[in-house]
Amino acid sequence: MAEKLKGGTVIFSQDICIKSSAGVAGHKEGEGPLASYFDRLYKDDLLGQKSWEKAESRLQTDVSSLALQKAGYNTTDIDVILAGDLLNQCISSTFGLRSLGIPYLGQYGACSTMAQGIATASFLLENGGFERAMAVTSSHFCSAERQFRLPIEYGGQRTPTAQWTVTGAGAAILEKGKGICQVKAVTVGRIIDYKIKDANNMGAAMAPAAADTLVRFFGDTGKRPTDFSLILTGDLGYIGSELLIKIMQEEGIDISSVHNDCGKLIFDRERQDVHAGGSGCGCCGSVFCSYIMEQFRQKKLNDMLFIATGALMSPTSAQQGESIPSIAHLIQLKAE
Amino acid sequence: MAEKLKGGTVIFSQDICIKSSAGVAGHKEGEGPLASYFDRLYKDDLLGQKSWEKAESRLQTDVSSLALQKAGYNTTDIDVILAGDLLNQCISSTFGLRSLGIPYLGQYGACSTMAQGIATASFLLENGGFERAMAVTSSHFCSAERQFRLPIEYGGQRTPTAQWTVTGAGAAILEKGKGICQVKAVTVGRIIDYKIKDANNMGAAMAPAAADTLVRFFGDTGKRPTDFSLILTGDLGYIGSELLIKIMQEEGIDISSVHNDCGKLIFDRERQDVHAGGSGCGCCGSVFCSYIMEQFRQKKLNDMLFIATGALMSPTSAQQGESIPSIAHLIQLKAE
Repeated sequence: MAEKLKGGTVIFSQDICIKSSAGVAGHKEGEGPLASYFDRLYKDDLLGQKSWEKAESRLQTDVSSLALQKAGYNTTDIDVILAGDLLNQCISSTFGLRSLGIPYLGQYGACSTMAQGIATASFLLENGGFERAMAVTSSHFCSAERQFRLPIEYGGQRTPTAQWTVTGAGAAILEKGKGICQVKAVTVGRIIDYKIKDANNMGAAMAPAAADTLVRFFGDTGKRPTDFSLILTGDLGYIGSELLIKIMQEEGIDISSVHNDCGKLIFDRERQDVHAGGSGCGCCGSVFCSYIMEQFRQKKLNDMLFIATGALMSPTSAQQGESIPSIAHLIQLKAE
Repeated sequence: MAEKLKGGTVIFSQDICIKSSAGVAGHKEGEGPLASYFDRLYKDDLLGQKSWEKAESRLQTDVSSLALQKAGYNTTDIDVILAGDLLNQCISSTFGLRSLGIPYLGQYGACSTMAQGIATASFLLENGGFERAMAVTSSHFCSAERQFRLPIEYGGQRTPTAQWTVTGAGAAILEKGKGICQVKAVTVGRIIDYKIKDANNMGAAMAPAAADTLVRFFGDTGKRPTDFSLILTGDLGYIGSELLIKIMQEEGIDISSVHNDCGKLIFDRERQDVHAGGSGCGCCGSVFCSYIMEQFRQKKLNDMLFIATGALMSPTSAQQGESIPSIAHLIQLKAE
């Protein structure tokens, strides 16, 4: 039986693993430092579709198919899919995955969706009923930009604190037993709102949520940051990452030597003009499911924390003067 | 350990119950046949807020607080919340529940959210880690109307097949042990798309999804419709309900003598001019968490299936010529 600790961290008693994963990404991501790790790169960001939204759906179709292929599984081998994205009513996921015929539980965690999906999948597997689950998420620069900010054609100038929404998707297949890495523990995030209202500074809005979750995890487990070879957030970018390290220092926990962020890893800051780094469900989704899983496969990574952060606002809430509540879900992973 | 059957139905081995619940509703719902069952009725559909969206958030704040009160629990007694709604980026849930400080897993199942939340809560409780979970959802006629259809002020005429989005919310607290009723089994829905494109006929789009889930449940369990005192869908309304009964008859399963629908129950069709009946996450959310739970309490109901249906489209997908994929999650409940 899983054990829940005081701060909410759940320690799994059964072997639950990530068996297979895939990450796909767009043209700009293909010019970045992680290009060689993605399972597929698209030259045409429309993916041959008629709209950015349909293109984003296609990312999910492709990435889930690749994750299945890599594991040698068919759709009938998967008991349940957990998927979500940033688009209104999560249409990238619904339309991208509708043809699979797999029982489906739609998730909404904004950019924390990859971690939320893996966390929920782990709970469902520990439960005993399900044998195998797939967590999927995506984002697309163009569909996100026009929905959350401005029409692409407008060519609006971006502020220095703004992050660049990644065109990409990730899929991870989880099952009982041993795999690429084991899911050892999960800390489900709480909604944290520091009353930040600048939708062009998501990193600052989300850093306190990541800190809240990390503090609860370390309090629960008695572990220290240096017990892990990597504490990977996604996607705080450069500004949010700095803030997180500072907030954690104020809590007496120094994560600076082992911390990195998917939004920092995916683009070359100097060369690619992405300001504060990458963001979007597909940022940590694609980085985690390709680059990070490959580090586990190559035994370069052994024990890590993955904390995906999400900003739970909408254009409507921003227009109505609301702040940006945020959330961060943590997963402890270990090679065994 | 829970057992998963061939068609995907999961039978729980542990006692998991709905311990407490609350349902709140708006002015129009307060003029309907279920008025006396709601825990709170609002005369002012703005709930003293400055926007319809903030009013909908307030529904969730209130209904979760009422469910806690009725159980005699504090926020610290709840390990995790599962919530979602129809608004873009699920802001009713995020903003309505952000002050609770409870670990939060955002759900997106459109109008199937109440069943999805209860299903996921049950999985998490069977898992062993969590002791207690709360499932919450809401909808608001005015926020839904202007987001999905037309500005309220426009006063557009509604087609006869259109359903009326309920202003209401439901919250259910689940825990291990015995309660108002026990969650015996869950069948997670699959995305079903019969290529229906009429956003003013959601019932027709969703009925095939309800049928798919019901057929799998009956195939898995060997049970018959008359083994249950009620098979309650939400929210197919009048047209979708008729279609569901027909599709099931074609499958050789006659549910007509025990079937009802939350969208039919909540309004008086003759008197309240709601065309095809009620809809929205808050329709089956409020009906299930007030009227239905009261039937269990009064021992008028013993064994039932609750199948909440959701239309997984968005205005953008509709504008891009897409059909309406749908989903339906089933929960088997029993008084013990």
